[in-house]
Amino acid sequence: MMSENELTMKDLIEIVDQKLDEYMIVQTPEDLFKSMRYTVLLPGKRLRPVMCLETCRMLGGDFEKAIPTACAIEMLHAQTLIHDDLPCMDNDDYRRGQKSNHKVFGEAVAVLAGDALLTFAPQIILTKSKDLTAEYKLKVLNEYHQYAGAYGVIAGQVIDIESENGKISGETKDVLKYIHLHKTSDLFKLSIRTGAIIAGASDEQIEVLTEFAEKLGLAFQIADDVLDEISTFEALGKTPGKDKNAGKLTYVSLFGIENSKCKLTCLFDECYDIMNAHELKSQIFTDIIEGIKKRVKI
Amino acid sequence: MMSENELTMKDLIEIVDQKLDEYMIVQTPEDLFKSMRYTVLLPGKRLRPVMCLETCRMLGGDFEKAIPTACAIEMLHAQTLIHDDLPCMDNDDYRRGQKSNHKVFGEAVAVLAGDALLTFAPQIILTKSKDLTAEYKLKVLNEYHQYAGAYGVIAGQVIDIESENGKISGETKDVLKYIHLHKTSDLFKLSIRTGAIIAGASDEQIEVLTEFAEKLGLAFQIADDVLDEISTFEALGKTPGKDKNAGKLTYVSLFGIENSKCKLTCLFDECYDIMNAHELKSQIFTDIIEGIKKRVKI
Repeated sequence: MMSENELTMKDLIEIVDQKLDEYMIVQTPEDLFKSMRYTVLLPGKRLRPVMCLETCRMLGGDFEKAIPTACAIEMLHAQTLIHDDLPCMDNDDYRRGQKSNHKVFGEAVAVLAGDALLTFAPQIILTKSKDLTAEYKLKVLNEYHQYAGAYGVIAGQVIDIESENGKISGETKDVLKYIHLHKTSDLFKLSIRTGAIIAGASDEQIEVLTEFAEKLGLAFQIADDVLDEISTFEALGKTPGKDKNAGKLTYVSLFGIENSKCKLTCLFDECYDIMNAHELKSQIFTDIIEGIKKRVKI
Repeated sequence: MMSENELTMKDLIEIVDQKLDEYMIVQTPEDLFKSMRYTVLLPGKRLRPVMCLETCRMLGGDFEKAIPTACAIEMLHAQTLIHDDLPCMDNDDYRRGQKSNHKVFGEAVAVLAGDALLTFAPQIILTKSKDLTAEYKLKVLNEYHQYAGAYGVIAGQVIDIESENGKISGETKDVLKYIHLHKTSDLFKLSIRTGAIIAGASDEQIEVLTEFAEKLGLAFQIADDVLDEISTFEALGKTPGKDKNAGKLTYVSLFGIENSKCKLTCLFDECYDIMNAHELKSQIFTDIIEGIKKRVKI
């Protein structure tokens, strides 16, 4: 393997893809594992595992120790996609340009494949992280359960679904922020915090990076909302304009395209400020931010 | 608390119910936690957590150390009930005499409450097992993920669903055994194995108890199939005859009532043989077995 200093985003994506392919080997029952594998291996930017590995590397840690955790986070992300796409949830037929999981394997298997990924992912952390001590494994698992569950991603998804059904308690903009913080930022926090923990970061460093992850996650979600308005099926890999047509609460529906782009610029500036203030140097995080800016044309 | 030697099944059920009530406190988002709490706290026999605690006690361990794990297993069990009852799965409107989760909270919240329980349960093991060392927590979590996931309960559920849709590969009786081993015995194994691990049991003891759990689980599932045929809604807490009407593959549909009762008697005898051969003394396990025998009239 090449020197860590030379690793690009493409290199990290390749490492993640290769390991995911290895971890997601089809076992018995075949349909279950095929369904799990199908969504986990859909072509993607592997943003969350890359952020986990890059955070570890950026803080001077051995990023290879973080590979099982990084892959587990991508599996968890795939789980949220499978269940979000179900007819009783967002009812999406396409994901990353391919048919969504339940359109290929049926609803029952899709529900069960999501369930299975929720326990398979931490099992990967438990059984494949051979370089982590018991204490570190427990720390990482604690993060996983905190951000994956009822206090994290799922909290965001419940409030999102309820807001779609017109059940909003509190100021609309606060509800929207709650949804974004949990649905999107929490997986960014999980990725970046576990990468930092595995690198042996101090509590103070972890705090700073949590703030960074929160802002990056909010920006990513706003960018996603903007793209849903201005993009095509080909560029998006899923049906565009769906949120708008469903009357869904999004940053764009609430504040308009121009204000959303303005907010995005602000959030990215704040991300760079944090990196500069704490001497966090990472070409890959810079590439991630600049990549999003380019896609939404700011 | 009274001396452990005097503890009855009723005492253990009370301990579990009280702790579940405490762990399942309603937090934000309220609907999510209410939905999780609803199914976990449905009145029940708490068979799995009781088996976990009783195994620990029977082997000379401090059963209080096993309380978080025992409760986590009941949460996991509730998760399987919530998702099994969904319209795309078994489509059951009632569970334990009450409306099933999605009939009260809607399908979307029911899916998410199940998901949340899958991460909430191990989080309880992680954060509430203050008397377990890091090594022991990891051992217990490893069991949890092994039996809860794609290698365990979910494997059984997938094959069960497929068999309902007429997709059976292999001999019918082998498929049925596979379903029972995973859908039912795996949670019994998880309960009994974790109780044994927390008691500090030897690998040999754990092996013996795994065999015991497998037989008890198979017996329990056959009894459930028999009751589905001979019982009423009031006694069952769910719609009886449903499996039969759905043309579902069950022990009774394959071998008939009399052969099923015969198999049950055999399995219980084997359970007692294991207990006697290894000097495992437990009034509570005896009560569990005799209770089932009484219900199915053997």
